[in-house]
Amino acid sequence: MTFEEARAQFPVLERLAYLNAGTNGPLARSTTAAIVDAVENDARDGRSGMEWFERVLALRDEARRGLAAVIGVAPELLALTDSTSRGCTIAIAGLGLTAEDEVVVTDQEHFGLLGPAHASGARVVVTAADEDAILAAVTPRTRLIATSHVLWTTGRKLELERLRDTGVPLLVDGAQSSGAIPVDASGFDFYTISPQKWLCGPDQTGGLYVRDPERLPVTLPSLLAASSYEPTGAFVPKDGASRFDSGWTSVPALSGLVAALATHPEWRYTRSAEMAARCRELLDGIVDVVTPPGHSTLVSFRPAGNPTELVAQLHELDVVVRELPGRNLIRAAVGWWTSEDDLQRLVSAL
Amino acid sequence: MTFEEARAQFPVLERLAYLNAGTNGPLARSTTAAIVDAVENDARDGRSGMEWFERVLALRDEARRGLAAVIGVAPELLALTDSTSRGCTIAIAGLGLTAEDEVVVTDQEHFGLLGPAHASGARVVVTAADEDAILAAVTPRTRLIATSHVLWTTGRKLELERLRDTGVPLLVDGAQSSGAIPVDASGFDFYTISPQKWLCGPDQTGGLYVRDPERLPVTLPSLLAASSYEPTGAFVPKDGASRFDSGWTSVPALSGLVAALATHPEWRYTRSAEMAARCRELLDGIVDVVTPPGHSTLVSFRPAGNPTELVAQLHELDVVVRELPGRNLIRAAVGWWTSEDDLQRLVSAL
Repeated sequence: MTFEEARAQFPVLERLAYLNAGTNGPLARSTTAAIVDAVENDARDGRSGMEWFERVLALRDEARRGLAAVIGVAPELLALTDSTSRGCTIAIAGLGLTAEDEVVVTDQEHFGLLGPAHASGARVVVTAADEDAILAAVTPRTRLIATSHVLWTTGRKLELERLRDTGVPLLVDGAQSSGAIPVDASGFDFYTISPQKWLCGPDQTGGLYVRDPERLPVTLPSLLAASSYEPTGAFVPKDGASRFDSGWTSVPALSGLVAALATHPEWRYTRSAEMAARCRELLDGIVDVVTPPGHSTLVSFRPAGNPTELVAQLHELDVVVRELPGRNLIRAAVGWWTSEDDLQRLVSAL
Repeated sequence: MTFEEARAQFPVLERLAYLNAGTNGPLARSTTAAIVDAVENDARDGRSGMEWFERVLALRDEARRGLAAVIGVAPELLALTDSTSRGCTIAIAGLGLTAEDEVVVTDQEHFGLLGPAHASGARVVVTAADEDAILAAVTPRTRLIATSHVLWTTGRKLELERLRDTGVPLLVDGAQSSGAIPVDASGFDFYTISPQKWLCGPDQTGGLYVRDPERLPVTLPSLLAASSYEPTGAFVPKDGASRFDSGWTSVPALSGLVAALATHPEWRYTRSAEMAARCRELLDGIVDVVTPPGHSTLVSFRPAGNPTELVAQLHELDVVVRELPGRNLIRAAVGWWTSEDDLQRLVSAL
């Protein structure tokens, strides 16, 4: 697949310099078509019957295999969720933390991770978002390190390998890494996927890698998580990570997800890294770039004026980036689909 | 709107005698069109920007008002969820139960209610599914009664008003009642809505009524539940029940839900009750009907032969009903859209 062919999959790129896959990726025609087909099938044939249900299960398997492949793990260790927030909730709730325990997080995390950390009842220890600070924050009471792989704010990528020697379980928010940069999640304990971002999938889909599913209690069971149950609700969990499947995913969303996973060319990671570097290069000198080089597909910068107004003005010019509220930062998200022209439009607009 | 006009909204009814809204309702053309429009807009304009986000919030408000109206409660007391299972999980987890506490459930509940009851750690007390048995099971340790309004198995409707005098909080699984029969949920503590069933809405939508939101801790917070938060994840919940909003709902699903809520004629409850009565009348004598008369829109019966085979044979004849596994029962779900012809086809096929 050439760059032009691959890029031409996305209608939004015809008009907009769309640089916000960090919120939601562009949707390909094949993804939209799969969703529309599924909705129309459901309306015509009904959402019911053994054949329909078996098709749902087959789609779930296919989505599970596809998401697992993105982060280099076995499908048996991948739960289907509906968001990274849900994945964080499932992992943290399963640990059964108390007020005696500590969870180490960085000061650059999303509420989808912080909310469940706080709700666990453990003491949440906030550190600077670098490897040394995280290591220094670990105490004998630390029961979990919970951090992004790529920070959604500055685009910095953490060297998570350095955190493994602590022996403390590691929950990784993969929202800005899975599908954006090459990831091998198999060395971590929990790793989340947000398919609606860099994988260009539908909303309300998600993945959670669990290295050792049998050791984490299922505290938020869905019907899909149980292989059998008693009248009291006591249940036998399914094998592997599917016991953490967070609930029903609609057939249109599953169909769109499977289609979206097929839209990415082999050269995706090389090209997105190149284009992110090119974006930094073009912005450097015009604005204050805060993302270090070579880290991720996000390029965050401090604008001269008011960021809210600037983002709105850029949108008027069909250049889509986002503000990081309260941080005086604007973020451009650069995908393998991004063209030199997209970047030139951003630069001109600035 | 005449019956013919109202019924003509649903493509599935052109071919099938579709009698399974108890699993998933028929989808109207306007619902499908709203979903397709939303997907195509998202693909063309991107899922991003202030205008887009404000449209999402407006859709959420509209969906919240619409669902609240279905069960006669104030929109401020209605949380948007993605399933009845999620609603049960949120309510039960919020109660902070321990092994010293008891939850009373009936022996006819769905795992979406039983799973979270079990996971709470409380002792789950299982009673026969009638009001006297439930009342007899209440002890000083009972912290929650959790039951369906209409049992998904036999279609029996419980007189929940009789359970209020216990003073024990009451969680009602409204999957087979909300949208199917007139409901005033305002007298209960928690009440769930499954829009994909009797409201003919998309999957991955849902509602949870919470009578007293300020008194239930938010133990499973989503970003949409917090009005502000600190770096530790400590947060100020939003006003009212929106603090229990369970996460992001896709714009296509929200759009479809709002469209679906507009498909129901004023006379829906009268007609569905009449047609359910007619269904009982036609089946009586041919099969062993277990649903008492005048209870709900479900008609369950014990077939002479193997129910799995019979349901498959009926599906071959374009008559869609479902088996209730392990109970030797088949269930016909009768909506306001059901015609005399649909019922005659069921009878002939049997």
